[in-house]
Amino acid sequence: MTKVAIMGATGYAALELIKILLRNSDVEIVALTSRSESAPHISEIHPCLEGRLDLRCEALTPAEIADRADFVFCALPHVASMEVIPDLLADGCRVVDLSADYRLSDPAVYEKWYHHVHIDPTRLGSTVYGLPELWAEKIPSADLIANPGCYTSTAILGLAPLMAKGLVEPTGIIIDAKSGVSGAGRNPKLGTLYPECNESITAYGVGTHRHTPEIEEVLTTVGGKEVKVTFTPHLTPMNRGILATMYPRLTEAVSRDAILDIYRAFYQGKPFVRVIDRIPATKDVAGTNYCDISVQFAGDQLIVFSATDNLIKGAAGVAVQNFNLMAGYPETTGLIV
Amino acid sequence: MTKVAIMGATGYAALELIKILLRNSDVEIVALTSRSESAPHISEIHPCLEGRLDLRCEALTPAEIADRADFVFCALPHVASMEVIPDLLADGCRVVDLSADYRLSDPAVYEKWYHHVHIDPTRLGSTVYGLPELWAEKIPSADLIANPGCYTSTAILGLAPLMAKGLVEPTGIIIDAKSGVSGAGRNPKLGTLYPECNESITAYGVGTHRHTPEIEEVLTTVGGKEVKVTFTPHLTPMNRGILATMYPRLTEAVSRDAILDIYRAFYQGKPFVRVIDRIPATKDVAGTNYCDISVQFAGDQLIVFSATDNLIKGAAGVAVQNFNLMAGYPETTGLIV
Amino acid sequence: MTKVAIMGATGYAALELIKILLRNSDVEIVALTSRSESAPHISEIHPCLEGRLDLRCEALTPAEIADRADFVFCALPHVASMEVIPDLLADGCRVVDLSADYRLSDPAVYEKWYHHVHIDPTRLGSTVYGLPELWAEKIPSADLIANPGCYTSTAILGLAPLMAKGLVEPTGIIIDAKSGVSGAGRNPKLGTLYPECNESITAYGVGTHRHTPEIEEVLTTVGGKEVKVTFTPHLTPMNRGILATMYPRLTEAVSRDAILDIYRAFYQGKPFVRVIDRIPATKDVAGTNYCDISVQFAGDQLIVFSATDNLIKGAAGVAVQNFNLMAGYPETTGLIV
Amino acid sequence: MTKVAIMGATGYAALELIKILLRNSDVEIVALTSRSESAPHISEIHPCLEGRLDLRCEALTPAEIADRADFVFCALPHVASMEVIPDLLADGCRVVDLSADYRLSDPAVYEKWYHHVHIDPTRLGSTVYGLPELWAEKIPSADLIANPGCYTSTAILGLAPLMAKGLVEPTGIIIDAKSGVSGAGRNPKLGTLYPECNESITAYGVGTHRHTPEIEEVLTTVGGKEVKVTFTPHLTPMNRGILATMYPRLTEAVSRDAILDIYRAFYQGKPFVRVIDRIPATKDVAGTNYCDISVQFAGDQLIVFSATDNLIKGAAGVAVQNFNLMAGYPETTGLIV
Repeated sequence: MTKVAIMGATGYAALELIKILLRNSDVEIVALTSRSESAPHISEIHPCLEGRLDLRCEALTPAEIADRADFVFCALPHVASMEVIPDLLADGCRVVDLSADYRLSDPAVYEKWYHHVHIDPTRLGSTVYGLPELWAEKIPSADLIANPGCYTSTAILGLAPLMAKGLVEPTGIIIDAKSGVSGAGRNPKLGTLYPECNESITAYGVGTHRHTPEIEEVLTTVGGKEVKVTFTPHLTPMNRGILATMYPRLTEAVSRDAILDIYRAFYQGKPFVRVIDRIPATKDVAGTNYCDISVQFAGDQLIVFSATDNLIKGAAGVAVQNFNLMAGYPETTGLIV
Repeated sequence: MTKVAIMGATGYAALELIKILLRNSDVEIVALTSRSESAPHISEIHPCLEGRLDLRCEALTPAEIADRADFVFCALPHVASMEVIPDLLADGCRVVDLSADYRLSDPAVYEKWYHHVHIDPTRLGSTVYGLPELWAEKIPSADLIANPGCYTSTAILGLAPLMAKGLVEPTGIIIDAKSGVSGAGRNPKLGTLYPECNESITAYGVGTHRHTPEIEEVLTTVGGKEVKVTFTPHLTPMNRGILATMYPRLTEAVSRDAILDIYRAFYQGKPFVRVIDRIPATKDVAGTNYCDISVQFAGDQLIVFSATDNLIKGAAGVAVQNFNLMAGYPETTGLIV
Repeated sequence: MTKVAIMGATGYAALELIKILLRNSDVEIVALTSRSESAPHISEIHPCLEGRLDLRCEALTPAEIADRADFVFCALPHVASMEVIPDLLADGCRVVDLSADYRLSDPAVYEKWYHHVHIDPTRLGSTVYGLPELWAEKIPSADLIANPGCYTSTAILGLAPLMAKGLVEPTGIIIDAKSGVSGAGRNPKLGTLYPECNESITAYGVGTHRHTPEIEEVLTTVGGKEVKVTFTPHLTPMNRGILATMYPRLTEAVSRDAILDIYRAFYQGKPFVRVIDRIPATKDVAGTNYCDISVQFAGDQLIVFSATDNLIKGAAGVAVQNFNLMAGYPETTGLIV
Repeated sequence: MTKVAIMGATGYAALELIKILLRNSDVEIVALTSRSESAPHISEIHPCLEGRLDLRCEALTPAEIADRADFVFCALPHVASMEVIPDLLADGCRVVDLSADYRLSDPAVYEKWYHHVHIDPTRLGSTVYGLPELWAEKIPSADLIANPGCYTSTAILGLAPLMAKGLVEPTGIIIDAKSGVSGAGRNPKLGTLYPECNESITAYGVGTHRHTPEIEEVLTTVGGKEVKVTFTPHLTPMNRGILATMYPRLTEAVSRDAILDIYRAFYQGKPFVRVIDRIPATKDVAGTNYCDISVQFAGDQLIVFSATDNLIKGAAGVAVQNFNLMAGYPETTGLIV
């Protein structure tokens, strides 16, 4: 029996974490946290959990959490995460951090994009980036995993095979991504009010979205050359799902079939990446931990399509995938339904 | 040229007011208000107005408004409305109040449902209720119009002909109403966040919704007997529209054709009520000032369907319809597009 | 290992059947059927099944199916079902029929509502109606189960406790139901085209919807008095979910708390009915086999709310629940995720 | 009084044509056509027109249409259009063709993309392409106007100013476009069924979409160099709207402000193009004839955003804009509401 806690249990990713973890009978959820002083029952926060989990969301300190739990999923916002994670680790917890706080290796880059000085900089660079399709071997022994961003993993999984083979130019890669509204979180804001985003599509964060340096850093590591991308996220009127439509420039002529073969070989044995023949649709991965990938040519221009559920493969699903590897469960436990 | 001001210009109904008033070349919008101290341009608030109206939303007093405008549309929340309307009237403005402050005739009923003491009680009971299909003759000379609620006018228009004829029992009328999310206003709240209400339908305000006494009071006036309704509003995943499905009990056997004839006669010459043969769908009235009404029998049970756009016929459209009558414009000016 | 076949594998309910059955490692899906002569792979029909089930949809006879399978889920339309089910049973298959063909007990009633002469009338009346919350004891030994309609089970579960106690008048019950569009099936029709039903709500089948006699027959059996309902289905702009808002008339004064206690007692030990305090929302049961029920008073009028996922508790979920009981698996197998 | 007919009145663009033309009291709609032999009333086809237009959709020959009408909006599919337009013109009608039949100048290009031999090839090349922002001076005297495609005009308006100035490379332009579902027409198809496209985004027609050669031909004319684009359309879960996110490569360094100035100068005096500072959202142009355009930089990469309502500025609105110029009405008649 593994005892797990979830910090920041009120958001959408936390709900998915709970639902996934409830499928593993060897896991016991022992603590949930929120800042609310009223300690609301989790079924008040997430009514769909009625009758499924009898826990309150408490305002617990890292030490209190460590008293109960072996593993902690930290679903707090950035900054709040790095304020508690050092203590959790010091108290012996192993941690999957769903925030951005430990994803980048350079504190200066973190500060530039997040406008905060990193308060735990010595862990940057040595924290394992939790994308099991790339670095599964480093995950089992890690005490802290930086769980990838939702756009990030969708984009990276779609480009990594080409980057690893050196088949695409490392710069000038256009990533035009479309995300459902749950990606914007559960805090009420005018921009994510129903009548504001229903029946509309728009771009946001152009040139400034914080997943940009994360995509670039990981792909640079994969390909060994400095990667630069143009990343344009769009808010799409749907609850869930990300479709990344990506336009890399090939360094040599390769056929579509050859490229699909490269992808299939790269993801051989990876249970959650499906290299498919048709263009992915987000509905086919909604509610799953799959990443569906395909490629097409429009004339000479290669187009890579990658689709995930932003809350599952883009957040809670990959978090549990990492957890499974860390805790010694089969990688797919709770993740194929 | 009529000079009009809109107080509370940031909401959804105010946007529709502006769009409708811009169609009348004899109307000049001279002032818009909001509480924001930064005096944002209206196109920052409602980007669709870009290039169409060059005004800022200012924090103006009633006196400042009265200096500029002859007519005021008051789109403030309840309570806030009755705090400014007496001054506007004293300064010579004629007012259409879109809030609930002047809709009920009894201050005690107001206090019971709105949990505020009415601060302008002498005007209750004498203020004209602005449903032109019922009381068009009172509107032209009025200085203050209480603009009906969205559920209210949809339900009343659907039941008034039967009530006027005494064909239905005045009590036990079930009104099962479904509204789009814009009816909940533009202030960010968890309940109207996109992922919370998309892909879901639920009821709310059961037994407590404030449109209940308003429906009852108006129908009581129409029928001359005390009306009691069971009103159940539902939040429906769409931007706009109300469908009221209503189950009154007939006092005598009447055929569907006879009932439709009664409706057609009742609304003879009323340009915005369409008595139709098929069941109304909200999409067919969306963006319009129409109220589509039809009836069906399921066995002996009569069912009345009434559909409106909650922001137009349910708010801004009927407000301009009232304004047109008050200001001497043709009733349909700006309202049939 | 139980070998199951699904006839009519191209629809939405069949997809859910497959997804649920894949969670039971003791079940092998051995055959899928469709009328298409090209025998499409199931992942061409339902792309989300890519890599999950390697079967083609074949045009198989009942005898061919019986050669492979012990159990058959018949997801064919009505009429088509009764054309194959006698042969399947004769060949030794046990069958859960998701169509309406065996739900009613009287062939004359069937003919009146479905406009077809029933070709297997001797089985009517003796076929077990598969609502395990009511008649779980009859299901394990049955060879043929009539799986309830989606509106039907939602409405019945919401009214059965009151009916069983004799607390409501058996006639004049108003059932105002709202369904997502998947309930209308997967055959392309103008009325379910995206732009036709998005941003709109309307009623349909008023007085003629075929779930009416089914609701009445089952509730009559439950309460021992002839039940008559007014059933008004509405097409709601969402993929999935049914909310039934029901207005029965109490025969005596009972408090809300007492009624909730009656519900809790009635569903004691039933894993898929959740009697809750708040008003159900369809999002909280979407993707689950739960039926969430609550009650409210508006004045003296009792209102019962019942919510399900029309494809799960309303179709595929309850079908597998029945199958689990028939095949000796725990009732919840594959159904709590 | 101008007498107009609409051929193919059952589709979404035709409905918008009717609504726009009804706003011009100098226009009389004298004929509507459909293939249906039952001659349905237009309010059976488009219920929102109830009480607004009393016409049936008849199966009329070009000669019969020419007997009644001076102007014809041809909203037939491609191929069907060129089968009737030569006769309409011969009979003295002036025609705005909303199909693709006369948009391309080369019959061989038409045949390649549309898989039909063009049966009226002599008119190709001389027909005026009806984008008034580019060629307003040619439209008044034209007898036949090829009305642009929806993606086409959205993309062209967004790129034309840069192309005219020679500021961008003519090849390798990426156009990632997102369209609402109404763009797929009103014929029931599996792919546009509500549950198939709701809650999902996907690309389609990659490398094969027929608007590609149209965009290339027009932009080639504008810039004087052969243009090649990579055009990727996406089906977005909303009724209406197109957002084109475009990635051209600048030939020299230009600031964002300088580019916006170029756009503002280019569209000076054009009432329907709004060059704005923020990123356009489709909701702000929905229901209007506006095209909202802005630009952003992500590093050195210029990104152009262009948004329209696919049924208005992308179809019916620009058609009436062309008609207004042809018939001598002010260009904005009926188009600003």
